[in-house]
Amino acid sequence: MAPFAKGLVMYDTPEPGRLRAFRTNVPALDLFPTTLWAQVASRRLRRATAASLHGCEAAGYPALRAAVADYLTLSRGVACSEDRVLIVSGVQEALDLALRVLLVPGDRVALEEPGHIGARYLFAAARARIVRVPVDAEGATLDPRRLEGVRLLYVTPAHQFPLGVSMSLPRRVAVLEWARQAGALIFEDDYDSEFRYSGRPLPALQGLGGEDHTLFAGSFSKVLFPALRLGYLVLPQDLVDPFSAALSVTRRHAPVLEQAVLADFIEGGHFARHIRRMRSAYAERLGVLTEAAKRRLRGRLEVSEVEAGLQTVGWLAPGLEAGRVAAAARERGVRLVPISQYGRLRGPRQGVHMGFAAVEPREIRRGIDELAGILAAEA
Amino acid sequence: MAPFAKGLVMYDTPEPGRLRAFRTNVPALDLFPTTLWAQVASRRLRRATAASLHGCEAAGYPALRAAVADYLTLSRGVACSEDRVLIVSGVQEALDLALRVLLVPGDRVALEEPGHIGARYLFAAARARIVRVPVDAEGATLDPRRLEGVRLLYVTPAHQFPLGVSMSLPRRVAVLEWARQAGALIFEDDYDSEFRYSGRPLPALQGLGGEDHTLFAGSFSKVLFPALRLGYLVLPQDLVDPFSAALSVTRRHAPVLEQAVLADFIEGGHFARHIRRMRSAYAERLGVLTEAAKRRLRGRLEVSEVEAGLQTVGWLAPGLEAGRVAAAARERGVRLVPISQYGRLRGPRQGVHMGFAAVEPREIRRGIDELAGILAAEA
Repeated sequence: MAPFAKGLVMYDTPEPGRLRAFRTNVPALDLFPTTLWAQVASRRLRRATAASLHGCEAAGYPALRAAVADYLTLSRGVACSEDRVLIVSGVQEALDLALRVLLVPGDRVALEEPGHIGARYLFAAARARIVRVPVDAEGATLDPRRLEGVRLLYVTPAHQFPLGVSMSLPRRVAVLEWARQAGALIFEDDYDSEFRYSGRPLPALQGLGGEDHTLFAGSFSKVLFPALRLGYLVLPQDLVDPFSAALSVTRRHAPVLEQAVLADFIEGGHFARHIRRMRSAYAERLGVLTEAAKRRLRGRLEVSEVEAGLQTVGWLAPGLEAGRVAAAARERGVRLVPISQYGRLRGPRQGVHMGFAAVEPREIRRGIDELAGILAAEA
Repeated sequence: MAPFAKGLVMYDTPEPGRLRAFRTNVPALDLFPTTLWAQVASRRLRRATAASLHGCEAAGYPALRAAVADYLTLSRGVACSEDRVLIVSGVQEALDLALRVLLVPGDRVALEEPGHIGARYLFAAARARIVRVPVDAEGATLDPRRLEGVRLLYVTPAHQFPLGVSMSLPRRVAVLEWARQAGALIFEDDYDSEFRYSGRPLPALQGLGGEDHTLFAGSFSKVLFPALRLGYLVLPQDLVDPFSAALSVTRRHAPVLEQAVLADFIEGGHFARHIRRMRSAYAERLGVLTEAAKRRLRGRLEVSEVEAGLQTVGWLAPGLEAGRVAAAARERGVRLVPISQYGRLRGPRQGVHMGFAAVEPREIRRGIDELAGILAAEA
């Protein structure tokens, strides 16, 4: 068997029903307007004709490509027209496609540490040599000697996964300058930056003059719902054809009716409205988490200030071990992911990943109460 | 750039509107019950809950896996329970996944010639060494010396692509025996065998005792509609976990709501009814093609008798060149694909691929009329 599937672990099967504190990587599905979505979908389905049952171009359904280009231009500061947008099933497929088209085995690639495990699996599947880039308060660090010969750098500038840092403007400029000089490409994973609670939104790397060196990817899994399996990849112009060709033989194209429904949902203004509603709900939940932690966990766990996203980091007081805390929490129905699961961390303190967006305020408070007992016992 | 996307051509963008004679590889979308599909989908969407917006397991939505297992057991003679069924976007993704999980660069693989070009692209992307297997009247031929060291054999036994031959029972037994002795795997592409017009349906290779050596793949693109992008892969038990793991990092899983709608459509009996209706419509269209060709093209083009599928081969009289005929036909709005585009052909006669299922009877007759003029001029 090829190294591809050896040792790969499957992603969590999502549990149904009410989500426990502090489930990460999922949005608040209980707040999703399912009835509205069903109405938009039914209207589109009723209008379906024989022509709409045919496939579409590999790059995607034209109306959705256009809607995504408009959205990214306005909201994410991405420099794109619809002919640079490829519709995919999500960031994993976007990255997989990129590595398959761009790399040959043995090529050097770089990614953040700690960082997204799914990206590491794909780099391993591509038989790439991986350079790990530490993360500081300004985001992924840049050590030109470490990056020598690197062909592709994977980063999460909007909201570093898992630390939650937003990459600073000087660092963004430096990363782009490095890519230009090295003739390298940047894979910008914009996985959950639609929800911003504070701070000034920075334009995407791609939009800071990096459009010829950046592959910008995002998905609708977290801004709408994970079952949808639709996302996008914005490409430098000369990569659109080879990526479309590769997509056409591996998957042909994304499902057409779902693409059309999503395009209608965006064009009808429902998408923008949903983002606004979720931003305010998530800000409230983040507030509940921060307040409750300050009150009950002071001196033992400090919730990191995040500007965006669905999750944050709980930094443990020196001496507290993330693995032990997470294990004790699990027994009381509280989910915490030790940051060390995403790679090596510098500094004396350990951290745990804590999701707040998908968890109801009452359950957030229960989680903090349980944690207070656990941390008191561990200290 | 990696060899993956170099030289790959994109699949045809399907043209909208009425299909011209003799479009291949598509079903009769004008006969698809879009209203019924919309009703089933709307009912499912109205019942959608937060839980159904979550993702599902990588292997697929449980109710669809079960419905596919039932269907394949009853209708295709496949030996399977739902835990061996993986839901994918189609045969291309199924084969891509198989090659990525099972092969390392340089591995020997075999496929039919002439054969499916999409399979050849994927073998090239996997950096496999390709052995070409000629096709005779009983299907793919078996020359054990040629197949020495081959790890995977790709075949289309139900209805060879593009020649339309059904693999004989003795040949099926011999293929399975070879796989068992060689410790090789068979990839059985069952791409359009739902529609059978004559002859006795043979059980799938997979169901002839080959379930531990056979990967059986099919899709709903031709039996329902291409825009859907859902298909299946039935695996030997020990491959289910590694394939699911690989799928979970490349694509997570297929879209959940579309899977649920399809499961409802099958469970409601609509799927079986649609197949019956299409079988009779396609049999009529095949009859129109055969009759018209006999009447107008006698001695110049002979339509091959096919037992199943959406297309057949028009064999040209010796001396007539398929490329020239197809070029002349294109100018008169008639599509013919020279069989030589799918690989080398043995024998003195050249052939053209002719689709009949998606083309209305009147348009079939027009196509034959045009061809009559072209062949008279060429002869």
